[in-house]
Amino acid sequence: MSFYQSPKKMSAFDAKFEAQKIAFAPVSFQVARCLSQFGILTKIDGAGDEGISLIQLIQHVELSEYAIHVLLDMGLSMGIFWCKDDRYRLDKTGYFLLHDDMASKNLNFIHYVCYQGLFDLDDSLKQGKAIGLKHFGDWDTIYPGLSQLPEQTKKSWFEFDHYYSDHAFDSLLPLIFKSDPAHIIDVGGNTGKWAFACTRYNKNVNVTIMDLPGQLAVAMKNAQACLVADRVHPFETDLLDNNKPFYQGGDLYWMSQFLDCFSKQQIITILQRTVAAMKPDSELCILETYWDRQPHEAGAYCVNATSLYFTAIANGNSRMYHSKDMLKMINEAGLYVDEDIDNIGLGHTLLRCKLKPMN
Amino acid sequence: MSFYQSPKKMSAFDAKFEAQKIAFAPVSFQVARCLSQFGILTKIDGAGDEGISLIQLIQHVELSEYAIHVLLDMGLSMGIFWCKDDRYRLDKTGYFLLHDDMASKNLNFIHYVCYQGLFDLDDSLKQGKAIGLKHFGDWDTIYPGLSQLPEQTKKSWFEFDHYYSDHAFDSLLPLIFKSDPAHIIDVGGNTGKWAFACTRYNKNVNVTIMDLPGQLAVAMKNAQACLVADRVHPFETDLLDNNKPFYQGGDLYWMSQFLDCFSKQQIITILQRTVAAMKPDSELCILETYWDRQPHEAGAYCVNATSLYFTAIANGNSRMYHSKDMLKMINEAGLYVDEDIDNIGLGHTLLRCKLKPMN
Repeated sequence: MSFYQSPKKMSAFDAKFEAQKIAFAPVSFQVARCLSQFGILTKIDGAGDEGISLIQLIQHVELSEYAIHVLLDMGLSMGIFWCKDDRYRLDKTGYFLLHDDMASKNLNFIHYVCYQGLFDLDDSLKQGKAIGLKHFGDWDTIYPGLSQLPEQTKKSWFEFDHYYSDHAFDSLLPLIFKSDPAHIIDVGGNTGKWAFACTRYNKNVNVTIMDLPGQLAVAMKNAQACLVADRVHPFETDLLDNNKPFYQGGDLYWMSQFLDCFSKQQIITILQRTVAAMKPDSELCILETYWDRQPHEAGAYCVNATSLYFTAIANGNSRMYHSKDMLKMINEAGLYVDEDIDNIGLGHTLLRCKLKPMN
Repeated sequence: MSFYQSPKKMSAFDAKFEAQKIAFAPVSFQVARCLSQFGILTKIDGAGDEGISLIQLIQHVELSEYAIHVLLDMGLSMGIFWCKDDRYRLDKTGYFLLHDDMASKNLNFIHYVCYQGLFDLDDSLKQGKAIGLKHFGDWDTIYPGLSQLPEQTKKSWFEFDHYYSDHAFDSLLPLIFKSDPAHIIDVGGNTGKWAFACTRYNKNVNVTIMDLPGQLAVAMKNAQACLVADRVHPFETDLLDNNKPFYQGGDLYWMSQFLDCFSKQQIITILQRTVAAMKPDSELCILETYWDRQPHEAGAYCVNATSLYFTAIANGNSRMYHSKDMLKMINEAGLYVDEDIDNIGLGHTLLRCKLKPMN
């Protein structure tokens, strides 16, 4: 990581502008969303180098002249368009807002899942609880409520979640099956996407999904549909409750985008319980995004921003960690890192952990 | 205006990052707010070149280690701090977030007045109504509800409103009294700030404030306190209602940050009624911020962003205009611009209008 260690090369003038951009950030966010939702980005993109005038846009977009104009002007200020001789043309930032599916997944996730709850970020930080979750229900964390969220919220949540994991699967599967595990324990396996990827990739492997009952019901329904219900097994538990069972003696324990859902203290406990469940030759594979392992500042920005979703909406006490913090917890729980592979998918890191030798 | 007429000089890589920044903008906004609210910016600023560590911050800020750390990491990504040898130092953007009162006024205005309502920007645009206002009450526009807004909302609204006008007053007063008006009509005079500035500046002038009853009650209470109740007069009306009276025969009609509260059609009507009320030698002085008259892009950004407050929160159909639109409406109403002065205060423009000669 080469960034954040020296002041930005930026004039005082530009920094002052940057401060105003932050102050008006909710405006720029909603304007970008509306420009996309009402098809204005698409229309301007379609006009190409020739551009399109306000009068032409009015004929094709079902909004008043006032509404289109106010969006266009803010879009100019945001660098989404440029405009010469009264004709609007898409600029590079607008191009990526329209065509980069990462931007649109992020934007929908922030709008439908996070926007309202982020208003209560201050209270969430003070109380160490996801106060913003109250906009959806009165659960303590989002996890038991996940299957009951409003349709659009649920859709945006899963699209965001899967977008990042899906990009990692292809390069991960050969790495995971290198040690030829007969039985994989998918800890916090959610809808079973990973379990099905494994059973597709290897015709003999069995996968046990450990999760809350709500998630398991969905996963097992999916297992039926994928015709792998004979090799995908549910294991009902609450990983935060030490009195609930933990699957013993799996060959490979798998935790993907999972530990970021817990506080440091909870992670150590979960890792210790995993250690207690592992056979001497079992592996624990941890897939996470660490902000310090991102090759570019843009990735670190997205990872750090995602942390605040955990603070205000998900559970109030977890986050995307710095890899150093995770390595410390892994060591403390009685494991060592046998392999440490960065740049999987969109900035994921795979840590292959084994039991430390007994003294 | 030299900006917006050509594509930004920006790599595809940076534009893609820019798109992610927009997608996570509500996060960066709330993080900046919390860093300021919890005194973290101040603490890091105070540490100067030496910087301050996370452990030291924990001793001085009443938040958990988790809460402080998650804010610091996102602050790094936003360029608010930089961090070397585990010590955080304020970067230029952080400096302006902390010390530039324009940034803090804008930020509070967006949080307390606009944030929640901006969630409904799409509906506001579709319906041409300020749907976001429902978070505060069931008024059609914010104006009749202004005096009943929650305390913190009202405070942020007035601080934002006055911040921009206050910076313009000093250079405006000599311009306005150049023509030695005996009676100024302050159209939409709100709490009376301009009226009191005039009576302070000139010991003989009389000022009549035309506004809604709620605003006038506050203004006249202030007039008593300023000991100018003998020269400041209330004139109760609703400027959107053509059946309500309009003050006739004033020497100088004054509209400051006023016409941006109305749609184009409403502005033309108000200007026509002013024309009908003017004596042959009366003046109409219009003070506004036009986004195309800002000397720098940062100003245009703020002005264009402010327009969306009108869309989603204030009335659903008004905005900060392009000067060309305003000049067209002024002409259409029967006036000509006798003097056109830019760069007053923080990017205001004064248009001194007179009646066009009769045919």
